[in-house]
Amino acid sequence: MGKTIIEKIIANHSEESVNAGDITIVDVDATMATDTTAPLAIKSFEEMGGEQVQNSDNTVLVIDHASPPPNEQVANLQARMRSFSREQNTHLYDIGEGIGHQIMIDHKHVRPGQIVFGADSHTVTHGALGAFATGVGSTDLAGIWLTGQTWVKVPETIKIEFEGKLQPGVTSKDIILYLVGKLGISGATYQSIEYSGSATNEMSLASRMTLANMSIEMGAKAGFVDTEGLVLKEPFEHIQPDEDAKYSEIHKVNVSELQPQISIPHSPDQVVNASYVENTPIQQGFIGSCTNGRLEDLQAAAKVLDGKKIHPNTRLLIAPASKQVLHDALEDGTFAILTKAGATFLTSGCGPCVGTHMGIPADEENIISSSNRNFMGRMGNSKSNVYLGSPSVVARSVLHGML
Amino acid sequence: MGKTIIEKIIANHSEESVNAGDITIVDVDATMATDTTAPLAIKSFEEMGGEQVQNSDNTVLVIDHASPPPNEQVANLQARMRSFSREQNTHLYDIGEGIGHQIMIDHKHVRPGQIVFGADSHTVTHGALGAFATGVGSTDLAGIWLTGQTWVKVPETIKIEFEGKLQPGVTSKDIILYLVGKLGISGATYQSIEYSGSATNEMSLASRMTLANMSIEMGAKAGFVDTEGLVLKEPFEHIQPDEDAKYSEIHKVNVSELQPQISIPHSPDQVVNASYVENTPIQQGFIGSCTNGRLEDLQAAAKVLDGKKIHPNTRLLIAPASKQVLHDALEDGTFAILTKAGATFLTSGCGPCVGTHMGIPADEENIISSSNRNFMGRMGNSKSNVYLGSPSVVARSVLHGML
Repeated sequence: MGKTIIEKIIANHSEESVNAGDITIVDVDATMATDTTAPLAIKSFEEMGGEQVQNSDNTVLVIDHASPPPNEQVANLQARMRSFSREQNTHLYDIGEGIGHQIMIDHKHVRPGQIVFGADSHTVTHGALGAFATGVGSTDLAGIWLTGQTWVKVPETIKIEFEGKLQPGVTSKDIILYLVGKLGISGATYQSIEYSGSATNEMSLASRMTLANMSIEMGAKAGFVDTEGLVLKEPFEHIQPDEDAKYSEIHKVNVSELQPQISIPHSPDQVVNASYVENTPIQQGFIGSCTNGRLEDLQAAAKVLDGKKIHPNTRLLIAPASKQVLHDALEDGTFAILTKAGATFLTSGCGPCVGTHMGIPADEENIISSSNRNFMGRMGNSKSNVYLGSPSVVARSVLHGML
Repeated sequence: MGKTIIEKIIANHSEESVNAGDITIVDVDATMATDTTAPLAIKSFEEMGGEQVQNSDNTVLVIDHASPPPNEQVANLQARMRSFSREQNTHLYDIGEGIGHQIMIDHKHVRPGQIVFGADSHTVTHGALGAFATGVGSTDLAGIWLTGQTWVKVPETIKIEFEGKLQPGVTSKDIILYLVGKLGISGATYQSIEYSGSATNEMSLASRMTLANMSIEMGAKAGFVDTEGLVLKEPFEHIQPDEDAKYSEIHKVNVSELQPQISIPHSPDQVVNASYVENTPIQQGFIGSCTNGRLEDLQAAAKVLDGKKIHPNTRLLIAPASKQVLHDALEDGTFAILTKAGATFLTSGCGPCVGTHMGIPADEENIISSSNRNFMGRMGNSKSNVYLGSPSVVARSVLHGML
């Protein structure tokens, strides 16, 4: 019987030839935990009697969620991550290095065809490389540290074909918002998604990461972007689904006529054409997050804001996804264009997306964000309204003071 | 009878020819309030029945202490500052514009010979321009908004003469730390300080601001740096003390042999030669604050760190004093040198100096900071130890992982 990508990858990491619905034990290539989840994983690992982390050379801890720390409790948890990393000889990316998912890919802790578990729901981002990557709880992660393995139930797969050529100013963010709107926030629950088609083949790695990233916003366990057209420095095996692979659903979407999309409060799947909500006043814009905080995202905003000033009634916060993104944006002048336009740069990391400490909205404020979730209170204030869009949409909105 | 600088400035703003000890009413040229104090000042102003802020064109509100805001309460207070500023037509410097004291000087809200009241103790920084500037409570500030005037008791003056030429790598921060060590934290309580001498005459405005800034660390109501040698774009009147002015104390300090100074926990006046505490392990360095967050401070750090990497056991946080400082550091390459050396840049503003939300130390950590206070818990954790030094000292410490 033909296999989907996830069936192939899981079979490669298991002693069995599995199909969707099977439960099996897999070897795990890499793990990642953040300052939100690593402290609990460390505690669980110790309670389980853990002495030596398996695969410590591909065990990654990242301080990205509350970075720099907003209080002494968080500071102490981060200090524990540092000491654990030294004890166990794992990787530790400290304050300012960036978002875990960006780091995993930039620093090659994950490669195509691998299996990665991360104690963060947006671990699905790594599917941009054609890896099986998904989020787990801290205790499950501790179990993987202990044994190097875990069990999985092989998901069914939804196939999505994006055909056509995007209009100027329309991006992979608009594509994935459109899809989230169509499938809904539980449209892919415990399934994997394979993204393919002529539109994905032309995408940069950064744009592919945006696609894979928001798979979780449809409840998917994983999202794979067809590696056709993907260019990496080192050669890699392109794992393709078999022609007779069995899918739970197949959707074909022509993106040629797609307009910029906006997700309106308070759910990522409340998606409309941007023109539908234009003139909505905006007090704060945010460009960043594991969804859209990369160089091409900052460049897209700079293209809109070059030589201009943001509207006096708005603020624009930008958190580069990693220190590498920051360096690249410094070098090509993007950083200077944005800060001269009135943007305020934040330390590389998750920034206000996670609503923990940096850029919390005031009551009644409307926010346009390049991030991934706009649930009520997501950004730290349940009386604010969060809209989601591409970096271009954010830039245009803060320029005019309205969507 | 001869007059000191403060006697002259106050007399210029009063209907009386005053001397130290007199109480008089003065016209106030400018006011400043931050996100820590402005919300309470606004509330007081309204409770007093205030309708129109006097001198609104020189009334300045700055969001610098908790910027970007760490929670919705703070976000709402900042939103109130914005709406008040629009209602009253005052200046409002929003998130990322920088520290109030830096903005007041950079944007020429304060000029030599003027009287400025700020709802922040480090308002004394403006004395670098030869202005009388001091901190008041929020309610007092609201009174000034209401009437344009306030009462003052004219302080006595301590005269300090810094003679000689500084050794390379020794800065105005080392001079003022040395003085704080000598006079103690209440050595100048309710007095003003006049700084003069060949060493101050050669100082940049930035270095003079460091001197004036830490006057409050000796309890002084104000600190004046002799405007001899001060270069500003516009011409200004140099207000000098009369030769027969009466001083409460006169100190002459030769700075030629001065070594780098460090203030050790937990009081700014616990000052020693840096060599006395060398080899003390350091986990975090901070360069920034109204004391030492200017371009020359970042350049001094860049000189130490150019082409090098900070010690793996340390973090270096840098918050430029203003967006202008950030732009200047971008343009001359200082920013890139520092971030490549491993520094993490924070949004322009007070940063971790004030211990509210960004870069709180963990328990038992030792911090070397270019800021002004190291009282127990000042940076947000009473179990951490804060050392104070110049930006060069901070840079050298994070390079070696120890003081």
